Amino acid sequence: MTTVFIDGLGLIGASLATFIKENNPNTRIVGNDLNPENLAYLQEQGLLDASCPFEDGAKEADVIILASPVAVICQRLKELADLPLKDGVLVSDVGSSKVQIEQSAQALIKKGVAFLAGHPMAGSHLTGAKNVDTNRLVNHSYFLIQENTSQEQMATFKELLSAANFDFRIVDAASHDQIVAASSHLPHMVAFALASTVNKAREASSVDWGKPAAGFLDATRIAKADATMWTSIFLSNPKQILSELDDFEQEIGRLKQAIQDKNADELFDDLKAAQAARLRMEKE
Amino acid sequence: MTTVFIDGLGLIGASLATFIKENNPNTRIVGNDLNPENLAYLQEQGLLDASCPFEDGAKEADVIILASPVAVICQRLKELADLPLKDGVLVSDVGSSKVQIEQSAQALIKKGVAFLAGHPMAGSHLTGAKNVDTNRLVNHSYFLIQENTSQEQMATFKELLSAANFDFRIVDAASHDQIVAASSHLPHMVAFALASTVNKAREASSVDWGKPAAGFLDATRIAKADATMWTSIFLSNPKQILSELDDFEQEIGRLKQAIQDKNADELFDDLKAAQAARLRMEKE
Repeated sequence: MTTVFIDGLGLIGASLATFIKENNPNTRIVGNDLNPENLAYLQEQGLLDASCPFEDGAKEADVIILASPVAVICQRLKELADLPLKDGVLVSDVGSSKVQIEQSAQALIKKGVAFLAGHPMAGSHLTGAKNVDTNRLVNHSYFLIQENTSQEQMATFKELLSAANFDFRIVDAASHDQIVAASSHLPHMVAFALASTVNKAREASSVDWGKPAAGFLDATRIAKADATMWTSIFLSNPKQILSELDDFEQEIGRLKQAIQDKNADELFDDLKAAQAARLRMEKE
Repeated sequence: MTTVFIDGLGLIGASLATFIKENNPNTRIVGNDLNPENLAYLQEQGLLDASCPFEDGAKEADVIILASPVAVICQRLKELADLPLKDGVLVSDVGSSKVQIEQSAQALIKKGVAFLAGHPMAGSHLTGAKNVDTNRLVNHSYFLIQENTSQEQMATFKELLSAANFDFRIVDAASHDQIVAASSHLPHMVAFALASTVNKAREASSVDWGKPAAGFLDATRIAKADATMWTSIFLSNPKQILSELDDFEQEIGRLKQAIQDKNADELFDDLKAAQAARLRMEKE
């Protein structure tokens, strides 16, 4: 019987547990989480067979999935290098940046342990096991970074998660971090800054603004995300995020200039190009 | 019988026609639009009694609603000052900025014509009469700027739109423009710039990025909005928008600095404050 140990049973960890049980009901899932509510909820749902300390879960597992914030994943990878793990164990993670994680996994990899870094693009501003909604999570991209994993181990991993119908994509760690810096980290950074700006303007105003506009709420939905998790993500991918922020500030600067110059043609061309790109991207 | 003339039967103009007919079926609605599809569609739906040129509609109306892009509204207000209008006519508009519109209405106001500037906060990235979805449009804030309108005329106007259950709020033009610069214009500007930045990074990459993340799509939904309309809005409220952009850039700058300094505490405090503000605002 395969035993999967999941360290961190928040939204993503609990989602993976749900998918694994769906197509592999005989797999034993053990888990660890700081929050006893996540553990109790998953045990009630029959999705978690046992909870145990990190060391114990790691030692008995055939597959280990690290699903805590990035900083914790990095620390866990170092701990794993010093633990007696089962022969043929596969270690994976779901962290949102990969270069730093890859560095933290070096000792483990040198010991010959198979490490398959991964990132399901299925996050949400919601957190915790109770918010798992597998309908919302299926069909997403799932990046995998091929470190030292055999084709067979890769196939086993994909089979475990087959219920989710993920679109698995093999990339290198640096490409991954550039992709998510632009497609996920930048939008979150912008949403946090936008929510702060509008909130401050609202609080400084002597007029009651009434209900916020639907457009603002949509544009800042992701600013409802967990601050601890995002602090960890931003600090784990600083170079790429700062580079994307520079590009974004240039875009803002060009639009600003067009407004200052009252240049309707240039402003229209920029907005039209942005609109066309956005419409194109949602069809991909 | 009351005749309402609506100039511009895109999403907002057509929505107002729908609401007026719902609670005032005997009101005659005449309209004008550059796009014959909007006119044909509304006539088929029984929401438009006749279409006619601007001058003809304006002359026979008891209530005139200008629902075209802001630059056109400004021009129409000047034209109205030179037309022989009915005694007691009420002129209103739905433009997204109000100071420039108020200035354009001065000649009309000097003639003693009642002008009630307005702005339903019920826009969408969708355009055109066919996309009217009154379920999505009810219960929104509707700003009104009290220029020279009697209480009776104000009551008549609100009664016409009673089906929408709008939350009418009387503000001055300058306050309105500051509110929408922060709550609507800034989020749109940011969404356009974000869509452009991510699109350029995606196109410059040698790797296939797969399906865009749901968070990015939400954050940029409003970048699907009409470029002509938004060019007109941005250029009609430049001072306030530029001021909000400055504040936004400061927020981005602070987050950037915290990342550069690897200052987890400061970054967390900023993200946590943004998250708390966003959660608070959606409950208002």
